[in-house]
Amino acid sequence: MTSTHRAALIDGKSIAVKMRAEIAQEAGALAAEGWQPRLVSISVGDTAAAELYVRNQQRSAESAGVQFEARNYDASISMEQLVGVLQGLNADPRVNGIIIQRPLPDHIPVKALQKAVHPLKDVEGMHPASIGNIVYNDLALGPCTAVAAVEILKTLPLTLEGLDVTVIGHSEIVGKPIAFLLMGLGATVTVCHHMTRSVAMHSRASDAVFVAVGKPGLVTGDMLKPGAALIDIGINRVDTPDGPRTVGDADFQSCAEVAGWITPVPGGVGPVTVAILMQNAVLATRLQKEHYAAQYANTEV
Amino acid sequence: MTSTHRAALIDGKSIAVKMRAEIAQEAGALAAEGWQPRLVSISVGDTAAAELYVRNQQRSAESAGVQFEARNYDASISMEQLVGVLQGLNADPRVNGIIIQRPLPDHIPVKALQKAVHPLKDVEGMHPASIGNIVYNDLALGPCTAVAAVEILKTLPLTLEGLDVTVIGHSEIVGKPIAFLLMGLGATVTVCHHMTRSVAMHSRASDAVFVAVGKPGLVTGDMLKPGAALIDIGINRVDTPDGPRTVGDADFQSCAEVAGWITPVPGGVGPVTVAILMQNAVLATRLQKEHYAAQYANTEV
Repeated sequence: MTSTHRAALIDGKSIAVKMRAEIAQEAGALAAEGWQPRLVSISVGDTAAAELYVRNQQRSAESAGVQFEARNYDASISMEQLVGVLQGLNADPRVNGIIIQRPLPDHIPVKALQKAVHPLKDVEGMHPASIGNIVYNDLALGPCTAVAAVEILKTLPLTLEGLDVTVIGHSEIVGKPIAFLLMGLGATVTVCHHMTRSVAMHSRASDAVFVAVGKPGLVTGDMLKPGAALIDIGINRVDTPDGPRTVGDADFQSCAEVAGWITPVPGGVGPVTVAILMQNAVLATRLQKEHYAAQYANTEV
Repeated sequence: MTSTHRAALIDGKSIAVKMRAEIAQEAGALAAEGWQPRLVSISVGDTAAAELYVRNQQRSAESAGVQFEARNYDASISMEQLVGVLQGLNADPRVNGIIIQRPLPDHIPVKALQKAVHPLKDVEGMHPASIGNIVYNDLALGPCTAVAAVEILKTLPLTLEGLDVTVIGHSEIVGKPIAFLLMGLGATVTVCHHMTRSVAMHSRASDAVFVAVGKPGLVTGDMLKPGAALIDIGINRVDTPDGPRTVGDADFQSCAEVAGWITPVPGGVGPVTVAILMQNAVLATRLQKEHYAAQYANTEV
């Protein structure tokens, strides 16, 4: 087999390994001061769908020096009971971050539940206040996938100030936060979506393209500027003659012929996303430590 | 004098008049239920700079059925005292919105003060939680200038879904919120700023251009697509042979020859911004009413 790829493959796993080593140092420093970072994962009902994610997070936590407790509640738990659980975790100083695994049973509204997590323990970066702080360029717990995608771009030898970037997909927790994070770094950002007249018009003029839509083959090589970076956030299960496979939103073959850098799926954004969750756990712990200190110092407003 | 303008002037004053009439109806309905909308304006120290704004707001409040109380504190007030004042207003059920007039004395950090306003009383839409809610497309108190600029675009006979829009300026309280609001309405949005390589490349491909930078003459006619809408948010004092004048960020003459619609400065975004403040006052009152009811009903989480 010959390959005409010109794109360099971005190795998400090795980026994640490096990140976890740094996170473990910070976690160790916090633990030495009495603030061992600790996450609690909540899943509800049948856990088969989330099990792989939870196991992944648990393994990542271990190598990042973060304690991880996986809790599972029966599918019959009520919204009121779950909110009570969250309030208990919010008030518990030994818990620094709360992860709500999806899917949830139909009677549990995920957005309302997410809002019940205290913003300082919102390691998934889903709370409106977290999103707002990102817009303000404040140190904040950002949505993990969005932060991971932007961290990957930062590993490339590109100057982000003035970089023309197209983001395809405008979801609240991926596309939009990627856009603000990039704006905060000085990029010129265009956000495209299913109502955009010509995505290619924008993507072809861009030095970097992020795609987070959930449609296999959405981005093809002819939509890219030669040498551009392509960060593929899509995760799609497709059937192939060789059995089911996981692919991104890019038509990998044609994109790899045109792009300068490309993330594989799997092995690109995914592993970095889990590392960002651990980075958020450490950041959340530090923010809680400062919050605690400020309350007792009583000099700050 | 002959004019080669082809652009239709957008009359912000008449848009604001129509809005205030609708707001007054809602305010009346709330008052009838015991929830008369009421704003408190806080200015500190020498008020000459803010006086014109405060008077304008007071007049707009009167015709929108909103009560308005202007308070002035001595420049010697401490941050702690001011936060105490805000906490009192937060807790007072007869106060539905708090406006912090700028400029503030140097010893008062405006962002920290703004965060002390309860999100439900944040009629200026500056709180991180307010910004986050906008990103989530939730009913929220948006930053007045950004909301006003978008409301103006909505009065034009353009289909917002798929509309190509360039926003020039990426400030947290104007440029970025305009971008999310437009994304929420289905537009394809590019945000440009001082690090953008070629603003014209983006603006010339756009059906609507928003500019909020604070540089007179920044946008010229050759940067626009013929027939595009130009919403000019800049407010700049410039010296002319005829004395000082207020102008926007657009070179009005050349832009008006190319654009399809253009906002004048003054008389464009400005009057609509004050009307949006009143709309936020009514929305804040309604949200507080619902919040109050939910607390006592004790059925909502």
